[in-house]
Amino acid sequence: MLHWTSAEDLNQYLLALFDHPYGDVIALKHHHATMKMRTDHRHIRPGNTVSGPTLMGLADVAFYAALLGAIGPAPLAVTTNLSINFMRKADAGSAIIADAKLFKLGKRLAVGEVLLRNEDQQELIAHVTTTYAIPPNR
Amino acid sequence: MLHWTSAEDLNQYLLALFDHPYGDVIALKHHHATMKMRTDHRHIRPGNTVSGPTLMGLADVAFYAALLGAIGPAPLAVTTNLSINFMRKADAGSAIIADAKLFKLGKRLAVGEVLLRNEDQQELIAHVTTTYAIPPNR
Amino acid sequence: MLHWTSAEDLNQYLLALFDHPYGDVIALKHHHATMKMRTDHRHIRPGNTVSGPTLMGLADVAFYAALLGAIGPAPLAVTTNLSINFMRKADAGSAIIADAKLFKLGKRLAVGEVLLRNEDQQELIAHVTTTYAIPPNR
Amino acid sequence: MLHWTSAEDLNQYLLALFDHPYGDVIALKHHHATMKMRTDHRHIRPGNTVSGPTLMGLADVAFYAALLGAIGPAPLAVTTNLSINFMRKADAGSAIIADAKLFKLGKRLAVGEVLLRNEDQQELIAHVTTTYAIPPNR
Repeated sequence: MLHWTSAEDLNQYLLALFDHPYGDVIALKHHHATMKMRTDHRHIRPGNTVSGPTLMGLADVAFYAALLGAIGPAPLAVTTNLSINFMRKADAGSAIIADAKLFKLGKRLAVGEVLLRNEDQQELIAHVTTTYAIPPNR
Repeated sequence: MLHWTSAEDLNQYLLALFDHPYGDVIALKHHHATMKMRTDHRHIRPGNTVSGPTLMGLADVAFYAALLGAIGPAPLAVTTNLSINFMRKADAGSAIIADAKLFKLGKRLAVGEVLLRNEDQQELIAHVTTTYAIPPNR
Repeated sequence: MLHWTSAEDLNQYLLALFDHPYGDVIALKHHHATMKMRTDHRHIRPGNTVSGPTLMGLADVAFYAALLGAIGPAPLAVTTNLSINFMRKADAGSAIIADAKLFKLGKRLAVGEVLLRNEDQQELIAHVTTTYAIPPNR
Repeated sequence: MLHWTSAEDLNQYLLALFDHPYGDVIALKHHHATMKMRTDHRHIRPGNTVSGPTLMGLADVAFYAALLGAIGPAPLAVTTNLSINFMRKADAGSAIIADAKLFKLGKRLAVGEVLLRNEDQQELIAHVTTTYAIPPNR
């Protein structure tokens, strides 16, 4: 089965799957993917902060990227749970970095987390835990 | 302090606050708000289903509406946690209904749930629990 | 396949399975179970309140009871996620009632909620959402 | 204000507060605490695995320890949310290690995570995210 080994190849797959995949995969490692998103006016809330749904969407795709990196193409894998704690305002003036990691890759469920930060910032904007259901015959 | 008593007035407030508030408040009761959203191509995923971030965004605004209905204007109230369980595909062909309810309205935190369904369907698309932080001097 | 139709029969099964199943099933309906727990000194925290782990344990068993009522014996079904929002102190002087409901009963996952209250109180002590994984050949 | 600097001192405080604080603090660093728990028959489920409520209770206390290490005595700080993903069976034959970390320490809320493992195992048993409310005048 195909497993992506480069962030570039995985980006091509995500671009074919989604109209707007919330940014680019910039790093792909074992059970780990990093995405970078440049926000624009569609993602901004009053106060020049990035909207919650944008952050949730980015986290969801980043975790999907980490999963695809681990198991290869899985168009029918779906999010079953996503839980996000918002901790600091996201600065819309700099890119958002999403670090996704698999905690567990089972036959039927993948569980992990996504850390969301502004580029060049250490402090977390938000922390996400999420679970994907993996179809039996993907 | 102003408390909204009509869905129409609350809609005006939300429209002034957000560019695209994910639909309209169609019912407003004590600690309870119902929103209705007609989805379009921007919210659709392959398979003619509504995207997860769209559902999360709608749930977030619906709970905010229930909170505003209870405490009046609170532009600085922010989501601190949102946890969503996705259960069935959302049919993009019919409107999405979001029923938001406050479980607890404290001085500093509001906690509640949002049930997401397709219009005229009983089965849940998704269930959300969420917490908002209420600023001390709103 | 055996499906329990009475709370009494289901209690016998839970008692055989667990040393201390956190109380008794007092009602069993379609995709719904209610448990009642009388707390004692082992469950109490300073302030005469019921401990968080006790409430989480009760919620977990109540949801398991609702699941068993729906699918029959499933000793290998396991909790995969449990998320609890604590809202008010539990009064250790009266019994705790846990109302568990299935939102979705799939082949592989069951998702639902548990409402925790003191007996004869309307206000929620805590709200739980939880997911169980159902083994393929139970 | 008193801030604990040693795991031993913090253990004394926890022992005075709780009858059975789910093990000992074995390390205390900036915004970080590690607890170790030896389980016994009270914590075991069929299959020689550690019960879910035991793991939730240990995680809750470990995060409380990390919070106390950061802010000093806060007997009235309370858990508002705890979300746990169970990933692998806990082996009751070896101690459970809980690594708790603060993501955010605000004036009113502390948010963080707890990683649960068997001693000398790398793989996670469970992952917890949790939020504590910090009283205004502690």
